[in-house]
Amino acid sequence: MLEALKKRVYDANMALVKYNLIIFTWGNVSEYDVETGLVGIKPSGVAYDQLKPEDIVLVNLEGEVVEGHYKPSSDTPTHVEIYKHFKSVRGVVHTHSPWATSFAQARKPIKALGTTHADYFYGDIPCTRPMTAAEIADEYEKNTGKVIVETFEAIDPNEIPGVLVNEHGPFAWGKSPEDAVHNAVVMEEVAKMAYRTQMLLASEMNSTLQKELLDKHFLRKHGKNAYYGQK
Amino acid sequence: MLEALKKRVYDANMALVKYNLIIFTWGNVSEYDVETGLVGIKPSGVAYDQLKPEDIVLVNLEGEVVEGHYKPSSDTPTHVEIYKHFKSVRGVVHTHSPWATSFAQARKPIKALGTTHADYFYGDIPCTRPMTAAEIADEYEKNTGKVIVETFEAIDPNEIPGVLVNEHGPFAWGKSPEDAVHNAVVMEEVAKMAYRTQMLLASEMNSTLQKELLDKHFLRKHGKNAYYGQK
Amino acid sequence: MLEALKKRVYDANMALVKYNLIIFTWGNVSEYDVETGLVGIKPSGVAYDQLKPEDIVLVNLEGEVVEGHYKPSSDTPTHVEIYKHFKSVRGVVHTHSPWATSFAQARKPIKALGTTHADYFYGDIPCTRPMTAAEIADEYEKNTGKVIVETFEAIDPNEIPGVLVNEHGPFAWGKSPEDAVHNAVVMEEVAKMAYRTQMLLASEMNSTLQKELLDKHFLRKHGKNAYYGQK
Amino acid sequence: MLEALKKRVYDANMALVKYNLIIFTWGNVSEYDVETGLVGIKPSGVAYDQLKPEDIVLVNLEGEVVEGHYKPSSDTPTHVEIYKHFKSVRGVVHTHSPWATSFAQARKPIKALGTTHADYFYGDIPCTRPMTAAEIADEYEKNTGKVIVETFEAIDPNEIPGVLVNEHGPFAWGKSPEDAVHNAVVMEEVAKMAYRTQMLLASEMNSTLQKELLDKHFLRKHGKNAYYGQK
Repeated sequence: MLEALKKRVYDANMALVKYNLIIFTWGNVSEYDVETGLVGIKPSGVAYDQLKPEDIVLVNLEGEVVEGHYKPSSDTPTHVEIYKHFKSVRGVVHTHSPWATSFAQARKPIKALGTTHADYFYGDIPCTRPMTAAEIADEYEKNTGKVIVETFEAIDPNEIPGVLVNEHGPFAWGKSPEDAVHNAVVMEEVAKMAYRTQMLLASEMNSTLQKELLDKHFLRKHGKNAYYGQK
Repeated sequence: MLEALKKRVYDANMALVKYNLIIFTWGNVSEYDVETGLVGIKPSGVAYDQLKPEDIVLVNLEGEVVEGHYKPSSDTPTHVEIYKHFKSVRGVVHTHSPWATSFAQARKPIKALGTTHADYFYGDIPCTRPMTAAEIADEYEKNTGKVIVETFEAIDPNEIPGVLVNEHGPFAWGKSPEDAVHNAVVMEEVAKMAYRTQMLLASEMNSTLQKELLDKHFLRKHGKNAYYGQK
Repeated sequence: MLEALKKRVYDANMALVKYNLIIFTWGNVSEYDVETGLVGIKPSGVAYDQLKPEDIVLVNLEGEVVEGHYKPSSDTPTHVEIYKHFKSVRGVVHTHSPWATSFAQARKPIKALGTTHADYFYGDIPCTRPMTAAEIADEYEKNTGKVIVETFEAIDPNEIPGVLVNEHGPFAWGKSPEDAVHNAVVMEEVAKMAYRTQMLLASEMNSTLQKELLDKHFLRKHGKNAYYGQK
Repeated sequence: MLEALKKRVYDANMALVKYNLIIFTWGNVSEYDVETGLVGIKPSGVAYDQLKPEDIVLVNLEGEVVEGHYKPSSDTPTHVEIYKHFKSVRGVVHTHSPWATSFAQARKPIKALGTTHADYFYGDIPCTRPMTAAEIADEYEKNTGKVIVETFEAIDPNEIPGVLVNEHGPFAWGKSPEDAVHNAVVMEEVAKMAYRTQMLLASEMNSTLQKELLDKHFLRKHGKNAYYGQK
């Protein structure tokens, strides 16, 4: 059932490796099929170099397995919660990509600091609130989805297609699993740039190169008496 | 028309991927042909692994398409503005390469801090001023070119073949598209070094290795009683 | 003797290269065979691209060579000490992987800061105390093992399968050499994230993108008047 | 003449690319042949992917070309100066490797901070003093060698086989060109670790993961009620 969907979900999961978003089994991608109401998702703890399209597990919006010889990702209830509330979302991805995860661990949003960010995210990428002990103790993964949804009460998930889960890591979504992975790659890239921007703004550069060295090196390559390289 | 130019522009665009300056479609390279007054430039939003030399779009210095089955890069008016004012420039490249973009997001120049920088750039690589709301609202990409040109009123673009656009990212140029890409790679490398230099200067290192450990490790490998490795 | 063990130890050593944990010969992996009481370990100073499974050296728990045409790793006494005291450990790995080593050089634990860490380590990864001049002068490598064991007096090595040796670098262990390498890769990844988390927490981000630029870039790609890309 | 030496110098130059120490033509390696008193060195500005063993230029200790169809590296006088004064050195390498260069730009030594450093360098790797305007104006490259030699007046170059040239970049040396490149790789690696150690020491980590999250994530994978992965 839904073999084309399984292939897309498989391809999107493999793309996590290609884009260096994950090591080992530290990520999962799913797709929601609006007609059948089913979600295809990566099986739990299966190595990426052994994953096959037919291993993708199908679950319904109650999170129950409908088809599949493996257990679904332990994060399945989070994916399902997102599909139930973000109506136009068709693909969801979760990774522990290191730059975005560092912001999540610092419990800080990835602020919109440049046009690279603005090309994809219409404002800051928020970080969820800490979960309560009760939320963690029981139905932890479902509650993770709930705090994500809560975080977007006043935000349009189509305008900010991603979130940081507090002290955990990023989720991203989109119009398809491929689009969700694309947004996850962008989140990682803008997180990296935001980190470096913050470091640059937090310190001053008062140093400058000795003028004679500047002259010497530029002019030995570019001046009319240049002597670097072959004639 | 201008098939050799299209091939050079294609090659230079592909080099952005090879040199890790871009992900996805986050860059574009062009060449200006002084005889015909035409510019060859990457089409907008076309994936690099699907790009072919014949996809390169030809536009005139009014930015109008003269030949091509695709729309040109949305940044075309910026490229054209550079060619109109920097008379010896034959290639222009725009990327969102992460180190240079981080300086642009911090609204700081890449200062000349070492001879690597001086080998290519005869002074600091400037950052443009913020654009006004009016400049952004209308003819944004053309106005981006205008603020670049304004930034070089007192700077020779042959001596500083690159710029940071405020809160956006780097543009670089040169005698050919290949040369422009070369300068873009250098900008990214000197931005990385300038960042790390700034961080080193902003903090002090008062720590030092325990003397006994220094002796032990150096001498077990290099002393006359060395016992590391095979005899 | 123990050819299957030698193959596993060989494979685990080669994995250090694959996972970018080491350069040159800066690492070693061993396995303990509980039946024979023997340890298979990498020979000292042999380049990884010349290493063969039959080069793995077998030593007993006194550290004496039982089989092998090479000298064992100079760190062999440290491995042996770990096997003698951490009863369920079957694989040990030592590297100078750069992120974990930087924490060791800073004499700081890798703190548990996120769920990535918690998935593998049930608390902070400790750093050993400085060794005394006497401990360094005589039986240095054995004493390195002893300070590791001392550090775990109140910690279960199955819950924290790794340690930083003060001003030196990481050791990790597990149920097999492969598992030990897996834990070494995780240590390096969580060290990287902990570093960046610390830097983010140590500085504030008060900057934000100009609102007009945020609107322009998001809407030229995603708004109903979007003009980026092909139609 | 000296074809075997040329091949070694060629191989060592190509290794700079393999070890990611350089981009473009930003490095050069030489070997000194004590019998003939000649130095084989990379030609100036020749791309690495076009370099051939027979392109290696032979010069004498006055820096005069003895054999070769290309001009030698513009840094040749620096290499020669090192061979003239550091009597046991047979290979010299110069790069602009980014971590070491960042320390040179910050005008700071790479301090000995761990055993990785101590395995190769018996103390801090020094940074030369600034050169005078006169030293830069005339015989710049020879004077670069002279300030290196001056820096080692009280240091044994066999114990510290490398140096940072102020605001420029690293030189390293050894018993052969291959050994010199090995030391250059180590300098880059210990510079990277020293940088990160400094950053860690310059800030405090007062944060810690929420206890409930630590329990949840460790125990869902490792506890007796673990539910992550397949059964």
